Amino acid sequence: MDSQDARLPNTTGQVITCKAAVAWGPKQPLKIEEVQVAPPGDGEVRIRILFTSVCRSDLTFWKGEGQTHVFPRIFGHEAAGIVESVGEGVTYVKPGDHVIPLFSGECQECKYCRSGKTNICMKYTIDPNRGFMVSDNTSRFSKDGKPIYHFVGTSTFSEYTVVDQGCVVKVDPRAPLEKICLLSCGVTTGLGASINTAGVERGSTVAIFGLGTIGFAAAQGAKIAGASRIIGVDINPSKKELAKKFGVTDFLNPLEYDKPISEVIKELTEGGVDYAIECIGNTQLMEAAFASIHDGYGKTVITGLDSATKRVIFNPVEFLFGRVLTGSFFGGYKGKSQLGDLVQKYMNKELQLDDFITHEMPFEKINEAFELLDDSKCLRCILHLN
Amino acid sequence: MDSQDARLPNTTGQVITCKAAVAWGPKQPLKIEEVQVAPPGDGEVRIRILFTSVCRSDLTFWKGEGQTHVFPRIFGHEAAGIVESVGEGVTYVKPGDHVIPLFSGECQECKYCRSGKTNICMKYTIDPNRGFMVSDNTSRFSKDGKPIYHFVGTSTFSEYTVVDQGCVVKVDPRAPLEKICLLSCGVTTGLGASINTAGVERGSTVAIFGLGTIGFAAAQGAKIAGASRIIGVDINPSKKELAKKFGVTDFLNPLEYDKPISEVIKELTEGGVDYAIECIGNTQLMEAAFASIHDGYGKTVITGLDSATKRVIFNPVEFLFGRVLTGSFFGGYKGKSQLGDLVQKYMNKELQLDDFITHEMPFEKINEAFELLDDSKCLRCILHLN
Repeated sequence: MDSQDARLPNTTGQVITCKAAVAWGPKQPLKIEEVQVAPPGDGEVRIRILFTSVCRSDLTFWKGEGQTHVFPRIFGHEAAGIVESVGEGVTYVKPGDHVIPLFSGECQECKYCRSGKTNICMKYTIDPNRGFMVSDNTSRFSKDGKPIYHFVGTSTFSEYTVVDQGCVVKVDPRAPLEKICLLSCGVTTGLGASINTAGVERGSTVAIFGLGTIGFAAAQGAKIAGASRIIGVDINPSKKELAKKFGVTDFLNPLEYDKPISEVIKELTEGGVDYAIECIGNTQLMEAAFASIHDGYGKTVITGLDSATKRVIFNPVEFLFGRVLTGSFFGGYKGKSQLGDLVQKYMNKELQLDDFITHEMPFEKINEAFELLDDSKCLRCILHLN
Repeated sequence: MDSQDARLPNTTGQVITCKAAVAWGPKQPLKIEEVQVAPPGDGEVRIRILFTSVCRSDLTFWKGEGQTHVFPRIFGHEAAGIVESVGEGVTYVKPGDHVIPLFSGECQECKYCRSGKTNICMKYTIDPNRGFMVSDNTSRFSKDGKPIYHFVGTSTFSEYTVVDQGCVVKVDPRAPLEKICLLSCGVTTGLGASINTAGVERGSTVAIFGLGTIGFAAAQGAKIAGASRIIGVDINPSKKELAKKFGVTDFLNPLEYDKPISEVIKELTEGGVDYAIECIGNTQLMEAAFASIHDGYGKTVITGLDSATKRVIFNPVEFLFGRVLTGSFFGGYKGKSQLGDLVQKYMNKELQLDDFITHEMPFEKINEAFELLDDSKCLRCILHLN
């Protein structure tokens, strides 16, 4: 499939009416609705979404606990699809191109993008409270003439969506969209936390706190980077077997020990691991991860957030001899510049994605997919939109 | 002077009776006493100290607030001198060599030394509570047959001292000992915090919190590394003029602003500095330093410690996009391997030490030197032992 599906009518310049999963309010089951999707504005791209998965951030903002409520809204940010049409001035993609939308865009012009030191973009930086397009502060989605809000610039729980051209990456049309859609968020975040942010090197030791998609991807990243020992920490014993598939060499369940897990890790590794990666977004785990690293050079990477009021507390002496604390956003990857390479790595079998897909179902069953993730009964559930 | 002073009798193998400044208890004025210094044991070196300066750590442990009390004790760790004699098995130095004692030694054999990732040494790591030699857990100092405790393996407030051969670095005999003694601690700590730990690069922006010896040395390090803007922060307005000598381009006094100094810095630097270095050991300043760095890539380095019960508290979201927090001990320099290079840089005028020397006096006036530093009325006061 290397051009737009010939069976579809040409919809360029027209409003498209299609199905979308609309969240009408916090914790209200999503409702599959017919919505209107306006044509892309200047510098924008309209995409036919073919596959999308559910990530924990979708759940977090759908639940709305401690968050600004932006409803009605179309969530979704892990997906892949095909360009349907483009707005004025778009030269990066054309109709028929296979693409992955990016919640972390790249304008390639701002101070951040030019710095070479960060993958954050000043223009397309993530803002979960923004419900509009960056270009003109309006929505491309509506129902009965009333706007429906966007989510992190992607809103992939819809058969069609509109994104800024800075928020989309073109990929090899031979790559299976139903797999590489996973590179939109969680897998890339975990991989990059190990490879880019921690900088795991051959022979080093790594502890991963929390074995969900990000944690398993971090384990895979550590394995790719040549770590000699990858310790996976989770209180769910069912993760033990699965963990082996992603390179975890030692599974530790903190509930099975009567001392802090950091002490167990320090005993196992003669003083602590070289790298610890927190993959849940829990301040207690962040502190435990920091306590597990080796003095002198150990590095802790956090990849997620706890509720807005939570804080991490440290004794500064723990830093004095060189321990490092930092964070990783989208694994430090610049989506537009680097995601194509990860797609190639998948195709070359240097990277595996298939084991992250524990469930697949039709788009209409999206509420079931939400429940599965909320109950930690899945890693990733792929929703098929066609 | 390239060999031991010929006017001195040969004391090899003998107990030496000499003057030392003995701290008999916390906050008690030091007393110049005649003490006995035993010959060096296996792998040890006895040094005739010619110049020593007073560093804040000497004050901290002399005051003993919140610290374990180890008295009577001979403090002192910034110094330079000449090898008087060596114990069995010492091949690294010989009598007459010019040396700087190292409170942060280097065995060059342990896991840490071999890692290449840290300047901490497992064998000679600093332990302010240790009052004995590492080799045999006894003291080389005594008075009236009773032991006097060592301090951080150096005890330079004495005409003669004994150190492990891992805790001494041989230097170019042409270098003026009354200047390069400063490389034993504070200056090297600040320099390396900028150059090694922060990794300041050409054109970057740096904020230095606290303008004492470490802070000014950090400023000098930033200047050597090519920083385009070096912001010095101190509540003492008299530091403003002096700061220029060390490369500070902008002096900020937090007392002159009605908003947090981190906000002032962010306004001055379009979002924050690339590097912030805390040079006092104050948890509030550590938090302010962290709040002053740029999102996405800013790095904060702490170089000192607050009282043992103090903690630093952060919102983890501040780390997520890539900010880094770490610490620098002795500037990340491996003393034995690298201090010789710094001595050469001083001799080549690539590094300046002279402006740190605000006072000089005879060793006997050591209590005056303590007061000057305690009252923040000096940077470094050099005590002459001969």
